[in-house]
Amino acid sequence: MSLVKVGVIGIGNMGRSHAKNLNQGDVKGAILTAVCDASEQQLEWAKNNLTNEIEIYQDEDKFLNEADIDAIIIATPHYFHPTTAMIAFAKGIHVMLEKPAGTYAKNVKEMNDLAMESDVVFSMMYNQRTNPLFQKLRKMIHSGELGEIRRTNWIITDWYRSQSYYDSSKWRATWDGEGGGVLLNQAPHQLDLWQWTTGLMPKKVRAFASLGKYHDIEVEDDVTAYVEYENGATGVFITSTGEAPGTNRFEITGDRGKIVVENNKLTFFRLTESEREFNKVDKTGFGRPECWEIEIPVTGDYPGHLGVLQNWIDAIQNGTPLLAPGIEGIKGLEISNAIYLSAWLGEMVELPVDPDLYLEKLREKIRLSTFQKEEVTNVTLDVEKSH
Amino acid sequence: MSLVKVGVIGIGNMGRSHAKNLNQGDVKGAILTAVCDASEQQLEWAKNNLTNEIEIYQDEDKFLNEADIDAIIIATPHYFHPTTAMIAFAKGIHVMLEKPAGTYAKNVKEMNDLAMESDVVFSMMYNQRTNPLFQKLRKMIHSGELGEIRRTNWIITDWYRSQSYYDSSKWRATWDGEGGGVLLNQAPHQLDLWQWTTGLMPKKVRAFASLGKYHDIEVEDDVTAYVEYENGATGVFITSTGEAPGTNRFEITGDRGKIVVENNKLTFFRLTESEREFNKVDKTGFGRPECWEIEIPVTGDYPGHLGVLQNWIDAIQNGTPLLAPGIEGIKGLEISNAIYLSAWLGEMVELPVDPDLYLEKLREKIRLSTFQKEEVTNVTLDVEKSH
Repeated sequence: MSLVKVGVIGIGNMGRSHAKNLNQGDVKGAILTAVCDASEQQLEWAKNNLTNEIEIYQDEDKFLNEADIDAIIIATPHYFHPTTAMIAFAKGIHVMLEKPAGTYAKNVKEMNDLAMESDVVFSMMYNQRTNPLFQKLRKMIHSGELGEIRRTNWIITDWYRSQSYYDSSKWRATWDGEGGGVLLNQAPHQLDLWQWTTGLMPKKVRAFASLGKYHDIEVEDDVTAYVEYENGATGVFITSTGEAPGTNRFEITGDRGKIVVENNKLTFFRLTESEREFNKVDKTGFGRPECWEIEIPVTGDYPGHLGVLQNWIDAIQNGTPLLAPGIEGIKGLEISNAIYLSAWLGEMVELPVDPDLYLEKLREKIRLSTFQKEEVTNVTLDVEKSH
Repeated sequence: MSLVKVGVIGIGNMGRSHAKNLNQGDVKGAILTAVCDASEQQLEWAKNNLTNEIEIYQDEDKFLNEADIDAIIIATPHYFHPTTAMIAFAKGIHVMLEKPAGTYAKNVKEMNDLAMESDVVFSMMYNQRTNPLFQKLRKMIHSGELGEIRRTNWIITDWYRSQSYYDSSKWRATWDGEGGGVLLNQAPHQLDLWQWTTGLMPKKVRAFASLGKYHDIEVEDDVTAYVEYENGATGVFITSTGEAPGTNRFEITGDRGKIVVENNKLTFFRLTESEREFNKVDKTGFGRPECWEIEIPVTGDYPGHLGVLQNWIDAIQNGTPLLAPGIEGIKGLEISNAIYLSAWLGEMVELPVDPDLYLEKLREKIRLSTFQKEEVTNVTLDVEKSH
């Protein structure tokens, strides 16, 4: 098959990184043919940094109608994700969508419905699914090594961002421009991995979010969420952009022990028997099941963004199964929508939350917003330091 | 000064350990003179295991009125703690109280009021305050090394107990006999250290408790609590007796980094500048304050129960300051009362919770209890494996 012609829409921090990779020929079977951005400044970058033959568009309609593209990468601000993706589906254009899938579940559901009716290859840019650590974790859990899950706990507070990050563009960290803060911008990876590795979606959420706790922003930069699962397991998810050095520690407890993922290591505390069984037969009161601490070897590359792009191109060309099917983007988003709604209402909510109620509350936030960004530098930040 | 004559009331798991230590002469300046227990079985143990001159009482009044004692250790079931302590205070008898201070704050407040009016030396058996790890942690936080605290997180789930533990006596893990589960029996140490090391009491609590999740009991054996502090910091406390091997990891984040206490190690991730300052001056968006990972040397013995006993005797004899003043027992109890009340009401509560409301709700639990212990073995368990 000939090369897949790829266009990139939105060439801010992430989009220009994808565009560069494609333009350098880093993705086999694909070629960058066009880019699109509403901002003159970004187009200027494209002119100066991409090879000559790349078409450059400022208007999205024109880009989608006229550019020589088989496939697009959508890296625009979150609100635009589903709208652009749906137009692409209708035109038979394959889609790679940057996270999050959208800002609210209502139109992401619509997007998914259309995706399923179309023949395009639709993938989410969940680059952390290519991390062999999480692939191994998922494999272990799904193979039953850990037994039934009882508790999950993710402290993911190492997304440190200084005020300058939020001042770098007008849309960032506003209800109107981004629809949220750390939950929509930084944590979507972990919200996805949380459910993808365990195979469990929370049923209930009670969450607490602090708005502009560490930064001069109107959205949340610090969140604690408690969840309950269908099987009675519970979980906690903590995230923040205000802590340094922060922590990234994911602990999952099951009937056969626990697994801790931290510092790029996967440690399995493996019980030699089921805890439920031991509980019944032990007569000593203080006895404990035998436990082996095992550092699980994790091998393989971590191809990251490039890996997901390659997988998507391979899927288009050869039908390779997708690592991150686009329609799975709604899962992490449903968790974050529930976290927001619980925090806003100050009560426990059940998943999935009413998408209309969520949208109504989000619109209320936008309508009532009085926040004015004092200083907008409109700089494009070096994304190499991001995840 | 002559030896302090000590009586022990309640010679179950913990009480007999204290009695043995005193009887062996392990506590300098003190001598065991009497023990008291309502149970024939325990008295039988005393006859067979303690030296001949020890007076043995079955009746508490007689013990407090007639025994040759200057001081007592109270190691009876929790409900009896304040009552016995108050009688002792009135008689000028020094008191060492096993944790928790009581089951509900109402009478613990009364106990504290009487203690302050009396001249006796009143201490709590917070043996974990003698752990050099927590002493060092407290020192570091109080000296300002960590800066203002922003988040606390304690996962303390390594109190594994099998069903046989709960079957070992009738009072255990019942609303009527113990007034609660893991929060009142195992976690009081950490509930105390959580506030003692940080110097912070939560202002608000929203908690979730599962009753008999892992055991055939009517009280909680699994708890997740979210707290908010006066200064805007948040925290999470997770405890359970159903997880193996469980976790004991205490993380505290501040303006100058974070401290993690785990695996008997104290690790300080020290920022070379204030995060608040860095946040303002950094212009790179993704920059991070410089951080040094330091394993803090922790030296000194961990004398545990014996250390607290010795400190109490030294306070009686020489006026040595108490490591765990008895009136501080209410702090951890107020946190656990708030956790229970929040879980029962299904809402956020403010500390301190209304002590009358708490007692009313607790009495309701007792009144409505239909739980029948099927099998009570009435065995005394080997406490060596406990904390």
